Amino acid sequence: MSNPIVDFLSKYIDLTQEETDIVTNQDMMRSYKKGTILLSEGKIAKECFFILQGCVMSYYLVDGEFKVTEFFTESQPITPVSYTTKKPSEYFLECMEDCIISLGTPERSAELMSKLPRLAAMGASIMEDQLANQRMKYDEFIKLSPEDRYQNLQKTSPDLLNRVPQYLIASYLGIKPETLSRIRKRLYS
Amino acid sequence: MSNPIVDFLSKYIDLTQEETDIVTNQDMMRSYKKGTILLSEGKIAKECFFILQGCVMSYYLVDGEFKVTEFFTESQPITPVSYTTKKPSEYFLECMEDCIISLGTPERSAELMSKLPRLAAMGASIMEDQLANQRMKYDEFIKLSPEDRYQNLQKTSPDLLNRVPQYLIASYLGIKPETLSRIRKRLYS
Repeated sequence: MSNPIVDFLSKYIDLTQEETDIVTNQDMMRSYKKGTILLSEGKIAKECFFILQGCVMSYYLVDGEFKVTEFFTESQPITPVSYTTKKPSEYFLECMEDCIISLGTPERSAELMSKLPRLAAMGASIMEDQLANQRMKYDEFIKLSPEDRYQNLQKTSPDLLNRVPQYLIASYLGIKPETLSRIRKRLYS
Repeated sequence: MSNPIVDFLSKYIDLTQEETDIVTNQDMMRSYKKGTILLSEGKIAKECFFILQGCVMSYYLVDGEFKVTEFFTESQPITPVSYTTKKPSEYFLECMEDCIISLGTPERSAELMSKLPRLAAMGASIMEDQLANQRMKYDEFIKLSPEDRYQNLQKTSPDLLNRVPQYLIASYLGIKPETLSRIRKRLYS
């Protein structure tokens, strides 16, 4: 049975059987119940994540109001800003479903990299891809209307719309739930 | 005289004199006149950039209207999405001032990394920092009001407000120039 992390890495490098075994054995998985907070505002992230199964939402609490910034699903890596900066997180990460997640720590990453120098050389490429994705997401938010962004979401993550409550999708799009209802009515009528 | 790229890399790794010389000798700088388009919509970026002097703006043209997404200034790296994806760029990069810029290409990066394996190992960290910055920028856009974002810009990049026309700052903030005028009046009165 293939390991999703091995599949993810295979986009960048053809792993030998020995390397595949190292990655698989190194992998530290945990399961989390729906509603588990993986990271709280004010805490320093000691782990980064790779979602094997489930959905994780990142959000801010601003004056008691949710501001959803991202949904992460299967085969997506999550590198919290706090993990990089070592400063307290400004946002939350919460499991929206029962999740199975692979955990990374600086120590375990360093160990893996020392065992797999070929992979270490690809680290920058992997992060570069994530940077390009994040940049595109930002630009999309700036240049597209909420309706266009909703339609993009339908195209790129159709399942997400059924996995997550509509009011959180609305928050993610930066609009009120009523506005999302109107958009949906217009699109489906 | 210190090289800005060496200074930038020194945040991640203490370079030996030999390594410093390699970076300095490898460095390919060019100067560009104000108004030069470094990357056009529809073109594939063959280079990434590191600004030694000047200011570069990234923007989309949507129905003939500017949508400014970023201003880059001294000691900032620019990795165009198109450079990573090898697909045509969806946005423009333009010099807002006379600029001196160091150019990177995949070939020259590979050569530098092979000469400086210690630096190659830091590549992922450098990209991870850029990813965290981009993520914070996106989140700020989502959770803060235009007025709060303007005040943030005053704090983090005070000089930028004097280097760039106000209507472009307004576009960057996602508001109309009249709205920015009102915000400025309110703040300064």
